[in-house]
Amino acid sequence: MSSTGRGLFGGLFDRGAAGTGDAAWLQAMLDTEAALARAVERAGLAPSGAGAAVTEAARAGAFDPDELGRQAVAAGNPVPALVRALTEAVPGPAAVAVHQGATSQDIIDTAAVLMARRALEGVGADLAAAADAAAGLAAAHQDTIMIGRTLLQQAVPVTFGLVAAGWMSAIDEAADGLNRVRGQRLAVQLGGAAGTLAPLGDQAPAVRVLLAEELGLACPVLPWHTDRLRVTELAAALAGACGVLGKMARDVTLLAQSEVAEVREGTPGAGASSAMPHKRNPVAAVVILGCTKQAPGLLATLAGAAEQEHQRAAGAWHAEWQPLASLLRLTGSAAAWAAELLAGLEVDAGRMRANLDAAGGLPLAESVVAVLAPGLGRLAAHDLVADASGVATRTGRSLGEVLSSPDLAARVEAAGVTSEQIGAALDPAAHLGSAAVFTRHALAAHRGRGTMAP
Amino acid sequence: MSSTGRGLFGGLFDRGAAGTGDAAWLQAMLDTEAALARAVERAGLAPSGAGAAVTEAARAGAFDPDELGRQAVAAGNPVPALVRALTEAVPGPAAVAVHQGATSQDIIDTAAVLMARRALEGVGADLAAAADAAAGLAAAHQDTIMIGRTLLQQAVPVTFGLVAAGWMSAIDEAADGLNRVRGQRLAVQLGGAAGTLAPLGDQAPAVRVLLAEELGLACPVLPWHTDRLRVTELAAALAGACGVLGKMARDVTLLAQSEVAEVREGTPGAGASSAMPHKRNPVAAVVILGCTKQAPGLLATLAGAAEQEHQRAAGAWHAEWQPLASLLRLTGSAAAWAAELLAGLEVDAGRMRANLDAAGGLPLAESVVAVLAPGLGRLAAHDLVADASGVATRTGRSLGEVLSSPDLAARVEAAGVTSEQIGAALDPAAHLGSAAVFTRHALAAHRGRGTMAP
Amino acid sequence: MSSTGRGLFGGLFDRGAAGTGDAAWLQAMLDTEAALARAVERAGLAPSGAGAAVTEAARAGAFDPDELGRQAVAAGNPVPALVRALTEAVPGPAAVAVHQGATSQDIIDTAAVLMARRALEGVGADLAAAADAAAGLAAAHQDTIMIGRTLLQQAVPVTFGLVAAGWMSAIDEAADGLNRVRGQRLAVQLGGAAGTLAPLGDQAPAVRVLLAEELGLACPVLPWHTDRLRVTELAAALAGACGVLGKMARDVTLLAQSEVAEVREGTPGAGASSAMPHKRNPVAAVVILGCTKQAPGLLATLAGAAEQEHQRAAGAWHAEWQPLASLLRLTGSAAAWAAELLAGLEVDAGRMRANLDAAGGLPLAESVVAVLAPGLGRLAAHDLVADASGVATRTGRSLGEVLSSPDLAARVEAAGVTSEQIGAALDPAAHLGSAAVFTRHALAAHRGRGTMAP
Amino acid sequence: MSSTGRGLFGGLFDRGAAGTGDAAWLQAMLDTEAALARAVERAGLAPSGAGAAVTEAARAGAFDPDELGRQAVAAGNPVPALVRALTEAVPGPAAVAVHQGATSQDIIDTAAVLMARRALEGVGADLAAAADAAAGLAAAHQDTIMIGRTLLQQAVPVTFGLVAAGWMSAIDEAADGLNRVRGQRLAVQLGGAAGTLAPLGDQAPAVRVLLAEELGLACPVLPWHTDRLRVTELAAALAGACGVLGKMARDVTLLAQSEVAEVREGTPGAGASSAMPHKRNPVAAVVILGCTKQAPGLLATLAGAAEQEHQRAAGAWHAEWQPLASLLRLTGSAAAWAAELLAGLEVDAGRMRANLDAAGGLPLAESVVAVLAPGLGRLAAHDLVADASGVATRTGRSLGEVLSSPDLAARVEAAGVTSEQIGAALDPAAHLGSAAVFTRHALAAHRGRGTMAP
Repeated sequence: MSSTGRGLFGGLFDRGAAGTGDAAWLQAMLDTEAALARAVERAGLAPSGAGAAVTEAARAGAFDPDELGRQAVAAGNPVPALVRALTEAVPGPAAVAVHQGATSQDIIDTAAVLMARRALEGVGADLAAAADAAAGLAAAHQDTIMIGRTLLQQAVPVTFGLVAAGWMSAIDEAADGLNRVRGQRLAVQLGGAAGTLAPLGDQAPAVRVLLAEELGLACPVLPWHTDRLRVTELAAALAGACGVLGKMARDVTLLAQSEVAEVREGTPGAGASSAMPHKRNPVAAVVILGCTKQAPGLLATLAGAAEQEHQRAAGAWHAEWQPLASLLRLTGSAAAWAAELLAGLEVDAGRMRANLDAAGGLPLAESVVAVLAPGLGRLAAHDLVADASGVATRTGRSLGEVLSSPDLAARVEAAGVTSEQIGAALDPAAHLGSAAVFTRHALAAHRGRGTMAP
Repeated sequence: MSSTGRGLFGGLFDRGAAGTGDAAWLQAMLDTEAALARAVERAGLAPSGAGAAVTEAARAGAFDPDELGRQAVAAGNPVPALVRALTEAVPGPAAVAVHQGATSQDIIDTAAVLMARRALEGVGADLAAAADAAAGLAAAHQDTIMIGRTLLQQAVPVTFGLVAAGWMSAIDEAADGLNRVRGQRLAVQLGGAAGTLAPLGDQAPAVRVLLAEELGLACPVLPWHTDRLRVTELAAALAGACGVLGKMARDVTLLAQSEVAEVREGTPGAGASSAMPHKRNPVAAVVILGCTKQAPGLLATLAGAAEQEHQRAAGAWHAEWQPLASLLRLTGSAAAWAAELLAGLEVDAGRMRANLDAAGGLPLAESVVAVLAPGLGRLAAHDLVADASGVATRTGRSLGEVLSSPDLAARVEAAGVTSEQIGAALDPAAHLGSAAVFTRHALAAHRGRGTMAP
Repeated sequence: MSSTGRGLFGGLFDRGAAGTGDAAWLQAMLDTEAALARAVERAGLAPSGAGAAVTEAARAGAFDPDELGRQAVAAGNPVPALVRALTEAVPGPAAVAVHQGATSQDIIDTAAVLMARRALEGVGADLAAAADAAAGLAAAHQDTIMIGRTLLQQAVPVTFGLVAAGWMSAIDEAADGLNRVRGQRLAVQLGGAAGTLAPLGDQAPAVRVLLAEELGLACPVLPWHTDRLRVTELAAALAGACGVLGKMARDVTLLAQSEVAEVREGTPGAGASSAMPHKRNPVAAVVILGCTKQAPGLLATLAGAAEQEHQRAAGAWHAEWQPLASLLRLTGSAAAWAAELLAGLEVDAGRMRANLDAAGGLPLAESVVAVLAPGLGRLAAHDLVADASGVATRTGRSLGEVLSSPDLAARVEAAGVTSEQIGAALDPAAHLGSAAVFTRHALAAHRGRGTMAP
Repeated sequence: MSSTGRGLFGGLFDRGAAGTGDAAWLQAMLDTEAALARAVERAGLAPSGAGAAVTEAARAGAFDPDELGRQAVAAGNPVPALVRALTEAVPGPAAVAVHQGATSQDIIDTAAVLMARRALEGVGADLAAAADAAAGLAAAHQDTIMIGRTLLQQAVPVTFGLVAAGWMSAIDEAADGLNRVRGQRLAVQLGGAAGTLAPLGDQAPAVRVLLAEELGLACPVLPWHTDRLRVTELAAALAGACGVLGKMARDVTLLAQSEVAEVREGTPGAGASSAMPHKRNPVAAVVILGCTKQAPGLLATLAGAAEQEHQRAAGAWHAEWQPLASLLRLTGSAAAWAAELLAGLEVDAGRMRANLDAAGGLPLAESVVAVLAPGLGRLAAHDLVADASGVATRTGRSLGEVLSSPDLAARVEAAGVTSEQIGAALDPAAHLGSAAVFTRHALAAHRGRGTMAP
């Protein structure tokens, strides 16, 4: 995006470092042409200096996207017009190095890969920041007890540390997926008119390798012009990242509900409503979801486009360009918002405890059964606690109160269980299972990753 | 899109009249605000002249999308910043009419509807032109015999008139679907903060009706802020249009194959390749497919976004904006390309006949069976023809030749069938069934539609 | 589904009346063949009684789906094997009427339409019941005040009547969409090998009309074998219904949250957890979402399959069968669950009021500003209330308390506003805007629909 | 699937080894319960022999899916009913080991993983067979020249060996992707009610590890109940495999077109049409496409379902079960069909050459330019050949003939180029570029993979 702004919606849906606009496309195509010229020169197919001359000319600012776009209509893609313009911009015999042996698809596919790599660097940095922030929350809240919720109902106690560790771990996993694609699956495409690179003669294999080297990309055993698995894998890794960010953002919107109020976003000024001063909208989480909910449809388009005919697809290839750019952009934006959201998230541990306590001990019913079972037998213990829970639910009293009512207290005592033991069983801190262990292990795994930076 | 161009890919994917860029969004939001101010004035809630003053100020050119976009980050949408800027631009007490009673969603939803209406006008005109061109082809080629193909295999004779009538009829159907949505389902959204329009007091229902009247939109019984069926229906009608255009374009790419060569695109200069002068790429068909293949994924995103929470969705609503604009743009582009493609399509009737004849009469086997059945019985007739067809296939001779070989000719004669009758049965013109009737009926239905223009 | 059960997941995902299993497919194909035989007889192309004889033989129970399925491998669809088996089951010369002039696609497409019609009857009945139940809730709760929520934050008061009216109205709209498809877009497919119906000679158009008449289906101007807009429209209407049901179910899951507790599902025994007796899972809402979330992907598959080649698609047609059946089944199941959910929904009006009151008057801030504005000027009024709201938020006091603190009370009094006026402005019942009017209008519109039953 | 058959469509869409029906689900859930019982016993939480007793009882045949399905309605999933039935089937104190510490999601998620693993074994074997068959074709046809086609237009020569190597290489890549998921991402899920495994006390981490060990699955650092990245990755790998199979099948349908006729499917009896004896439908390719075109929509559903709330999703989790099973089934079916298709594919090298020759040398224009350029200069050479190509196209003569017409022959001779050199340049065998090198390298890479069998 240009320095003059990202337009009406760019602050929301194009916040990250992923440049996917015309300028980015254009520069990536020119970078590919320049690298090809250098590769061709190194292979002895163009005069010395040709590569440098083309590289010098290959600056996006020197070309008019609108004009190239107008000319793209005749060919169905902008590369022929760009090649003409670039050739004219290269002085003398160096021009022979421009686009040598290549077809439009070579340029667009490789440019898309370059754009993706640049975008993934930004996404990776933002995901790393987001995961680090989540790790900070997990470490700080290892002992912050809250109610766990299943099917949106209060269930049993967990810790907020474990919740945040879950976000962190999932973000790390998504980053691993993107790193794998970035490291192993971003490959140069060079096949010429139909994948044989005939015009480059015996030098063709060497030129492919040199081009890959110039660009720092993998060079697969075959040109991949109609094997689109790499595109599907890239798209899936992006959509996977959107999935974990969307999960986190969904949790934040739910935890930030007025009636729950266990977290709120901390960005100063954001989410405020002058008309409704009590509102503090979870803007970052909402926008993240606005981004991530677009990913599955784009992924489907890209996966569906893999059915490509013969040596170049009639339409399915063209249908990839915009969805891939959109998916890079939206993932980048979601990741940037997530890093900010998690860095500023305000956690209300008191409210977490209050929400749990408001359940009147019922989330600990299971724990009480465990205490009573040795004396009563499992079935009778279960029945006793189920009865008590029913009474508690109907009367609004806590489970502890009900269990200390005379008749039940007698049954408890008859089971050889003391009221202190019942009290201990009703302490959520004693019913957290492996929350602490899991959190510690997850944090250790996160720390063991080292930096994710490119 | 601005007059200065549509960028690198706009000529391909944004060719139609559907304005869906920032300028279009901005103007549509301003048109909504202006109409609301007029409605509010008419309802007596703002001073006389306020509506006109706001309308005067509500010109997209006076506002900076980049700046609005930067401010949109705090609220999660650009409307609050736009309202502030618009209010400042309206002199004196008229400012009270700005955004009165409204919430951001009212403005964005109604603006999206206005954008859609404008886009549908362009799409409708292009579809009408495309259908008319297909009708011209159908009328001109009612007697142009070609081979019908099923599962990409030659099957039995059809006419190109019937093929073109099929395209025409499907495009008309798709236009009907879009017209239905345009006429019945584009509705004003005005509900205020949570759908009750409380700040407008008793005048709220009247203001809704007046706003709808100002904008020429339907006014449903309830605000539809979280009932997104209208969005799904609009998206489905657009994707439906993409579907029929994609079918036509797919046929054109197949008929234009070098080995088939029954049609080719007629746009001068387009599709030529200087390196491969024998190529004449079906650029329009390819780009149409490049557009239409993106539609199902966008439709899925929009249909999935219908699950919206309470009185305003946290993310699902935001996830609609860009996919809806993209779907309008891509459908518009596909329709514009289709109108041009069909208007210029070159049909090679000779080649159609030659391709049919090259099948050596085998597509008429069914017809020969019908002639032999009365004399031989259906089963024996079938066996005889199947034998003959097998011989023809293995030897490369025509079915006619094989049937006139001595032994088979004797069996035919024994069935009381003359060689002239066999010859007649092998005439594809006699085996076209209802192709002509269907084509005539379809053309009459097309003509009976009158104009589709808005 | 057979009387012996719907398997492990059928109770969840196949609860409705939509029969879409093998038995339903088989019977629908046989019904099509039988109707074709009767049409052929009526057109004079088969001996008298042939139609009845085929109809007599065309009973699903007489055919083995597994065996047909095994034979389907050779042809790529089960119709040729079915035609052979049916022909063998028809005694004497009547067999000539079997499948006359038809191709496999005619049978499968028409059968799918018949299956869809039967399914839509069940869906329609369940949607009508669901809407009626929602109407009952809307009528009963016209005056039940609750907090409206936007972006999952408490915003301003609404009524539960309006919320339920929104569900009702959306379900009615979705039913209208399905009824439109059922009434206008379910059409017979009969085109023969390539759409010309050559083997039926001059009688072909008549046979099409008669077949449509026999089946009670529309007869479009052209066979629609590769014009799949009808499929897309059917799928979109189903996905649209899923969308509105998903919105309702999402609201129910949110309103049923432990911390909100404003509604709960009323089905006895359902959703209970013996281990966690305090839980009452919103099972119906959860399963509805489990169904509806599958719809957009299936819709995308069906919309994408519209790109069909020539006179019969090589794959895209085959890709429709299972997704269409799944979409019918899932929509039917969601509708059946929704009817039960809404009929049994328990509404806790007291909790609704308590949740609203817990917001301490802040949702009425806008209302207080309106009372103060005439005396103070709008800006000063806003500032005063914003200050007070800030204090209320920080201190946990109600807005009313803060406003009656000495210094603010003085400023209020100076504005010529009495404490009674402030009290009135803080009454949510006075700030419901058009909730009652909208609800009444929506209920009237619902009642005006009459029955939706087929 | 049962031994009694796969129903009406199972031969098409459920051909592979992927068991995903009720019996497979049921057994996988029981296998999980049995392994959990063994793990619990090993951890000292159940009496000796309990694991064996549960394992003995955990046979799918002993349970009635229909009855479980009926009971599933109350809980929203079939596990509670299964646990009851299993507990009843386990004699004596061993019953305590059943489902200890687990929640329904633990069982369903782990069962889905087990089903996936079994399905992936079958898919892997079929993909390996398909790739081997493609390798056989590639090796056999390294020198089989054919025309390459771009945008469905004849372009420049390639070899069928290279085409088949492209299929092979893509299938191998897809298999790698599935193997990676199978080896690294299939993980046990065990978290209990909300991910803390509280009922298992200190033994919880050990039980997780033991359960993973019993099942041969990975044990991630955290339970993954609401981190669904693994599901997305599995789905993406399956959809990726569908993509490459769809590309191959699309090529086969195109190469098998009557007018192209370069390949045909070799399965005896399949694809024949008694009514149209000349037809040989590419049934396998068509059914593969019928399977693979369903994958992107299912992938979108699964990727979209990753947005899961808190500690267990209300709907999004339930929406995964059927799409995942369908995707496994369809990928398995496509792979099985592909293995058969490729093993039996008949290649008509003569027709390939004839189709190329029918282009009259025009695909070699580029090659002629290269020969003329040293003498004429590149631009003049290009113009000369373009002129000649134009004449050839218009007159139907070959490029060689046109170039040997007197005036052009003179210009050629003046450039110092002999007619023998022109003839050599027009030999497609000399213009295959790196086709042979690429094919050899790809074959070597395939052979280097060793077996893919599990």
